[in-house]
Amino acid sequence: MSNKIKPSILPGFMELLPKEQLVFNDIVSKITGVYEQNGFLPMDTPIIEKEEVLLAKSAGETEKQVYRIDKEDKRQVLRFDLTVPFSRFAAQYMNDLTFPFKRYQLGKVYRGERNQKGRYREFYQCDVDVVGNGSLSIKNDAFVINMASKALKKIGLNSYKFQISNRKILTGILEGLNITNMQEVMILIDKYDKITEEQFLSDLLKLVGEENAKVIDEVIKISGSSDDVVEGLKKVAVKNEMLEKGIEETEEVIKYLKLFGVEDSEYAINLKIIRGLDYYTGTVFETLLTGNESYGSICSGGRYDNLAQNYTENVLPGVGMSIGITRLFFVLKEIGFIENYKGSLNDKYLIIPIGETFEYCTEVLNKLLQSGKSAEIYFEDGKLKKKLTYANKLDIKYVILIGEDEVTNSELVIKDMVTGEQKKLKIEEL
Amino acid sequence: MSNKIKPSILPGFMELLPKEQLVFNDIVSKITGVYEQNGFLPMDTPIIEKEEVLLAKSAGETEKQVYRIDKEDKRQVLRFDLTVPFSRFAAQYMNDLTFPFKRYQLGKVYRGERNQKGRYREFYQCDVDVVGNGSLSIKNDAFVINMASKALKKIGLNSYKFQISNRKILTGILEGLNITNMQEVMILIDKYDKITEEQFLSDLLKLVGEENAKVIDEVIKISGSSDDVVEGLKKVAVKNEMLEKGIEETEEVIKYLKLFGVEDSEYAINLKIIRGLDYYTGTVFETLLTGNESYGSICSGGRYDNLAQNYTENVLPGVGMSIGITRLFFVLKEIGFIENYKGSLNDKYLIIPIGETFEYCTEVLNKLLQSGKSAEIYFEDGKLKKKLTYANKLDIKYVILIGEDEVTNSELVIKDMVTGEQKKLKIEEL
Repeated sequence: MSNKIKPSILPGFMELLPKEQLVFNDIVSKITGVYEQNGFLPMDTPIIEKEEVLLAKSAGETEKQVYRIDKEDKRQVLRFDLTVPFSRFAAQYMNDLTFPFKRYQLGKVYRGERNQKGRYREFYQCDVDVVGNGSLSIKNDAFVINMASKALKKIGLNSYKFQISNRKILTGILEGLNITNMQEVMILIDKYDKITEEQFLSDLLKLVGEENAKVIDEVIKISGSSDDVVEGLKKVAVKNEMLEKGIEETEEVIKYLKLFGVEDSEYAINLKIIRGLDYYTGTVFETLLTGNESYGSICSGGRYDNLAQNYTENVLPGVGMSIGITRLFFVLKEIGFIENYKGSLNDKYLIIPIGETFEYCTEVLNKLLQSGKSAEIYFEDGKLKKKLTYANKLDIKYVILIGEDEVTNSELVIKDMVTGEQKKLKIEEL
Repeated sequence: MSNKIKPSILPGFMELLPKEQLVFNDIVSKITGVYEQNGFLPMDTPIIEKEEVLLAKSAGETEKQVYRIDKEDKRQVLRFDLTVPFSRFAAQYMNDLTFPFKRYQLGKVYRGERNQKGRYREFYQCDVDVVGNGSLSIKNDAFVINMASKALKKIGLNSYKFQISNRKILTGILEGLNITNMQEVMILIDKYDKITEEQFLSDLLKLVGEENAKVIDEVIKISGSSDDVVEGLKKVAVKNEMLEKGIEETEEVIKYLKLFGVEDSEYAINLKIIRGLDYYTGTVFETLLTGNESYGSICSGGRYDNLAQNYTENVLPGVGMSIGITRLFFVLKEIGFIENYKGSLNDKYLIIPIGETFEYCTEVLNKLLQSGKSAEIYFEDGKLKKKLTYANKLDIKYVILIGEDEVTNSELVIKDMVTGEQKKLKIEEL
C-alpha cells in the first residue's frame, strides 16, 4: 500500500542526468564566453510577459503554440522566442542603451509543439544581435557569422558549413523579372530541399511562367566557391538595383569573414536560403552539419531593417543569430559528439579519510581549494571500495587516501583513477 | 498617429540594464563556481511541471500563489521553488544517481505574491543540497553552511552573520516540559523578532503556563559565543534525549565549521531560528546582513530527514540551503554594494580604425582575442568623440587607435581610459 505520486515530468521537456548536464553547461558557458569576449553584453528578460506586448505582431502559428497563464484579469503568456522580448527591451530602454547595442541572451522559451522526438516544448535559445540606431555597418553581418564560427569551434565542433545568402539577391531578381507573386515564389524556394526536382519545377512554372522559371531555376542553382557564385550572379541577364546591392553586400560579407578569420571551408553561398519572410531584409544564413544535413540548421540568423517597429517610431536596423541549444544538444547526442565530449571539465580530487584523520583531510582540502582545484572529502562511513566507486562514477580523476601514517608523516597518497598510478607526496608538494 | 504598443513588462518582474546585468551575472557565476569547485553537480529541471507532482504536498499559501498554465486537459504549473523539483528528480532517477548526491541548481521560480517593493513574482534561486541514501553524516551540515560562507566571501560580501540552531534543541526542551501544543509555541518563537517583548511573553504564558514560559524564555535568550550557548544549554534543567542529541549535533557542526575555515565571527548560535516547521529536523540556519538585519535572511537552509517522501519509499536524508539571488541583488543594491562592486569584470579593449585601416585593425583584434582578452572593433562611421563616448559608456578600459601611420609602421596607439595615459606600441609588443 502506498500513496506515493509517480515522479515524472511532462512530455516534450528535456532533463539531463548530472554527467550530461555537466557537458550541457560546459557547452553553454563556452558559447556565452565567446560572445562576452567579443563585446556582447548580457541581457535577461522575464519568461512571462504581457500578451499584448509579446503577440503585438501575431503570427498565426505562434499564437496557436503559445503557453498562456491562467490568471485573473491580466493576459500573460510565456515567451516563445528571445527576439520579441529583445525588440521590446530595445524600445523600452532605448535612451539608456549605447548603440550599436551588442547583446547576447541565453534563456528558456516555450512552444506547445506537437510532441515528437527531438522537438521540445521548453528549450534554451542563445541569441546574439547587434543593433544600430538608424544605421548599421555591413561589417556586422560578417561579424555575427564569425561569432557562430567562433562559438562552434570553441565547443570543438568542426563539421559544419554556413549557408549564406542575401535576401536582396532573390528579391532583386524577382523584381527585375516583374514577378508580382513574390512571396509565393520565396515560399516555394524555401521548400526546395523538401520536395522533388520535378515538383519544384512544375510549381515554379505555374507561379511565374516558363521563361521566368528558367531564369530563377538557373539562379538558385549557381554554386561553387563564393567567388564563383558572385561571378555567376553578375552574369545573370536581369538588371535590377536591389540585385546589384545584394551582390555587393555579399561580396563585402565574404571579404570581412576572411578578415575575422572564418575559413573558406566553413561557408558556401546558397541562394536557396530564405528564412523569416517578413523579417529579414539582407544577409541570411543557416548552418548545416556536414554529413548530417538532415537534422536541419543548428544556428541561423540574418539582417533586418527594423527591430522594434511594433513598439517605437525609432528605426533600429540589426543583424543577429540564434542557437537553439537544447535542440543542438539533442542533435550532438544523436551524432555521438556528446559521448566523446572532452571540453574543459576540470580535474577533480576526492579525499578519503581512513581512520580518524578528518582534521588533516580538511587541511589538504583547504590547500587544494586555495590553489583553485575542484576537491571534496568523502564524509560518510563505509568500505573503501564504495568510496572508490563514488570517485569512478563521478569521473573524479584523483583520489587522495589519508590514513593515520600519512598524518604522522605529513604525507598523502594520491591515486590517479585513470592510469591507476599511485604515489606518496609530502603535503607541501601538493 | 501611431499604432505602437507601449513596451513594458508586468509588475513584480526584475529586469536590468547591461551594466547591472554584468554584475548580476558575475555574482551568479562566482556563487555557482564555488559550488562546482566543491563537488556539487549541476541540475536543471523544467519550469513547468505536472500539478499533481509539484503540489503533491499542498501547502495552503503556495497553492494560492502558484502560476497555472491555461492548457487543455493536463494540469500544469510553474515551479514555485527548486526543492520540490529536486525531490521529484531524486526519486525519479534514484537508480542513476550516485549517493551522497551533491547538487546545485540555479533557476527562476514563480510566486504570485502581492506586489510590493523588493518582492518578486519571478526570481532566481540558487540551491545546494547533499542527500544521502538512508543516512548522511552531520559533517554535511557544517559543509553546507561553509558553502554559504565561501559563496558570500567570493562575491566580496563580509558583513553577514549565520544564525544557527538545531530543531532538536527546542523540540527536546518542549518535549521535556511535556508541552503538547508544540507547533503553536514554535510559530510564536519564529515571530519573536516581529513582536514586542511583552506581547511575546504574554502569548507564551497563554500557550504553556507560567513555569514553562519562564524556562522557554530563558532558553531562547541564551546568547554569547557558541561555546557559551552550548554551556548554557547544558545547564538547562530539562532532561530529554532529543535535547541532548541537538546539543551534540550543534557542537559537531561548530567543530567542523572551524575545520572548513568558517571563522567564529561569521556565525552565532541563535535558538530562536525555526524555519520550515514540517520540513527541517536538525540543523537550521539563516543569514543576516550585519547592520542591515531588517532585510531578513539572504540565505537559509537546514537538515531534513526525508527529501522525497511524496514520491518514494526510499528514505533520503539531506541538508541544503538556498540563496534567493534576485532578492539578494535587490538588497545589495539597496545597501550600496552593487554600485561599488568590483568583481572580476574583465578589462576590455575597443579598437577604433581611423581612415582606411580596417584590415590592420582585424589583425590587432585577432591577436587580442587569441591572447584571451575581451576586444571589439568599432565598425560604424562617425566622429572620434562618439566612439570614445561608446568606450566610456561601456566601461571599456583600453582604446586602441589605428590610423594610417600606425599601419605603415606596424604600430598602435593604446589609450588607458581611466588614467588618460596614451602610449605607442609595436604590434609585437601587444
